[in-house]
Amino acid sequence: MSIITLTTDFGVSSPYVAEMKGAILSIHPAAAIVDVTHAVPAQEIRRGAVILDLVTPRFPEGSIHIAVVDPGVGTDRALVYAEIGPQRYLAPDNGLLSRLAIRLPPGKIIRLERREYWLESVSHTFHGRDILAPVAARLCLGLEPERLGPSQQQIIMLDWPEVQITPTRVTGAVMEIDSFGNLVTNISEEMLAGRPVDERVCVVCGIYETYGIYHAYGQQMPGMLVALINSYGWLELALVNENAAERLGISAGTPVILAWE
Amino acid sequence: MSIITLTTDFGVSSPYVAEMKGAILSIHPAAAIVDVTHAVPAQEIRRGAVILDLVTPRFPEGSIHIAVVDPGVGTDRALVYAEIGPQRYLAPDNGLLSRLAIRLPPGKIIRLERREYWLESVSHTFHGRDILAPVAARLCLGLEPERLGPSQQQIIMLDWPEVQITPTRVTGAVMEIDSFGNLVTNISEEMLAGRPVDERVCVVCGIYETYGIYHAYGQQMPGMLVALINSYGWLELALVNENAAERLGISAGTPVILAWE
Amino acid sequence: MSIITLTTDFGVSSPYVAEMKGAILSIHPAAAIVDVTHAVPAQEIRRGAVILDLVTPRFPEGSIHIAVVDPGVGTDRALVYAEIGPQRYLAPDNGLLSRLAIRLPPGKIIRLERREYWLESVSHTFHGRDILAPVAARLCLGLEPERLGPSQQQIIMLDWPEVQITPTRVTGAVMEIDSFGNLVTNISEEMLAGRPVDERVCVVCGIYETYGIYHAYGQQMPGMLVALINSYGWLELALVNENAAERLGISAGTPVILAWE
Repeated sequence: MSIITLTTDFGVSSPYVAEMKGAILSIHPAAAIVDVTHAVPAQEIRRGAVILDLVTPRFPEGSIHIAVVDPGVGTDRALVYAEIGPQRYLAPDNGLLSRLAIRLPPGKIIRLERREYWLESVSHTFHGRDILAPVAARLCLGLEPERLGPSQQQIIMLDWPEVQITPTRVTGAVMEIDSFGNLVTNISEEMLAGRPVDERVCVVCGIYETYGIYHAYGQQMPGMLVALINSYGWLELALVNENAAERLGISAGTPVILAWE
Repeated sequence: MSIITLTTDFGVSSPYVAEMKGAILSIHPAAAIVDVTHAVPAQEIRRGAVILDLVTPRFPEGSIHIAVVDPGVGTDRALVYAEIGPQRYLAPDNGLLSRLAIRLPPGKIIRLERREYWLESVSHTFHGRDILAPVAARLCLGLEPERLGPSQQQIIMLDWPEVQITPTRVTGAVMEIDSFGNLVTNISEEMLAGRPVDERVCVVCGIYETYGIYHAYGQQMPGMLVALINSYGWLELALVNENAAERLGISAGTPVILAWE
Repeated sequence: MSIITLTTDFGVSSPYVAEMKGAILSIHPAAAIVDVTHAVPAQEIRRGAVILDLVTPRFPEGSIHIAVVDPGVGTDRALVYAEIGPQRYLAPDNGLLSRLAIRLPPGKIIRLERREYWLESVSHTFHGRDILAPVAARLCLGLEPERLGPSQQQIIMLDWPEVQITPTRVTGAVMEIDSFGNLVTNISEEMLAGRPVDERVCVVCGIYETYGIYHAYGQQMPGMLVALINSYGWLELALVNENAAERLGISAGTPVILAWE
């Protein structure tokens, strides 16, 4: 039986999440529902897209991931079902799946149009509960996705910053700030293959710099800025035992440059 | 098998919630437990009552909803089991169920008195864990509610503000502020039946006003105050893409007036 | 089937929790996972240890409790499996289990070394997901703990403040501040056996004092400082209907003295 996950910008205190769960369980009382996070900053589609990309591939094949960061709810933006690798997604077609899709183009994409699979009464402001939740429950019970509506060729893609790579420079950016204040970049371990990662590499983030790329926070002294390959395989900057984002005043989007002489 | 939900004022960080789950699972290891919210403001019975009313009817019939906002714990306030529509509730009898009960009077009401269904050792300060959790687990396993104690005729009702309706005015109030800062009122869609909802209606909230009642946030420009019928069927006021409660300094209880010429 | 619980310092907003759940469910899709809390203050091993001690014994026998407060991740600190009473734990061996262990010495202790039970690719910064989660899933499916690595005799013990007891004084400290701001001490009900708990006992916490030990918050007037035996059986100090920690400026570690003439 598939797992259903929820990723939203409703906030950790919000009972809206429970309404979605109620809608799922009313159709499929034995559904296994897992919260990914409800702390995507309100209406920040890009932040939601990064989290979906980092977390959802960790789930069992065939999991159904509902994502709701939906400033256009009630307008004519589409809702889609999309298969990306072995994972299945239900989301507004507003770019929320586009970070996943740049690494692995979606296989099947279906636009949700068939109202018989939605709640009987659909509000204008909460399609997560009224459309995505019941559709997820029905997919989990075996409904063929083709029944949900017409297929479409593409989802909406956002313009994601690309990493610039030259013989002496790799230039990326901070993509996500985690709950410890660590700065996760869009520079992957693979992009550094064959280059020295000892003190010959200078890592620059905003006005700060550090030398060398390590494996663990504990390899540096408390309070020091350390660059390491994190548990996702991405370059990350951290202040050992402190909150780097707060202490250094760095936010998502800040450029990160690796430089070799 | 029934679902057990939890609504408390313990805070989202609180391990007290897990203690209730441990108590339930120790009796009924396969129980399906869903968090409604643990962010009811501490000891604010009215806020808890509004959330229970908005959210719990969304759950499957026969669900058991535990609610703990309990400033009187350890005094002689009663704990009750109550059936309201197809839903079942376990809560202190302090008004927490009274918002649900004004729309639909409870069917069966039982006062929890039979200690053999509680934890062996009952504290004076945490009846949610020591009484409500084990009782919910046992109800879920099939215990007849009549076994829990004597029946009673009524639950304690709080005095809820009524909406005033005249030919040219509908006067209600802000009942709940959601996690986006939107202002949910006690004025329902039905109360507006037959009246114009275009620019002929003026919606006044505190010192602010807007004209017309819309269906979606996206129908107005970012930053504008918009009135709409929300996903609960209630009139709601929102600042498009912003936090209305914070920006306008409006809190629960603020009057909301709809006026027609 | 066993329950798996999670106690971490990842923060309530963190998607890291969901990654651990994804890792568990990828191996054991029907696992029942319960969050204890993710709000242990970052890297505060002692705070995590107190919460584990207060909460986890409430779970069914054989539950598997994963605990991650792990400033030494990626260094050579060990990870252990430990049986403490009827509960089973997976944690870094950094003192996190030591508050549980002073009351009940661990039975079996196994150092996690056999990589075939871990994720195929193990990061240097997230052993909770890459080692503890898959090991918990496999234990839950019946794996013998002896397969995980060599046994060891002891876990690392932190130095916990002991309660001083004399004929006229019991001196302890605030151990934990709950989500209501109540101050939980390390003075247990048993330590007061046979002593008067009426107005003859003076309870001193920092610069504040109160007389008598009560059973319920509601036995005092709002705003008053009240000492009572809480739902864990520990002496607790609370401001009725208010947040004692914030209002009085008291933090974990503050001495608490009970004095009789």
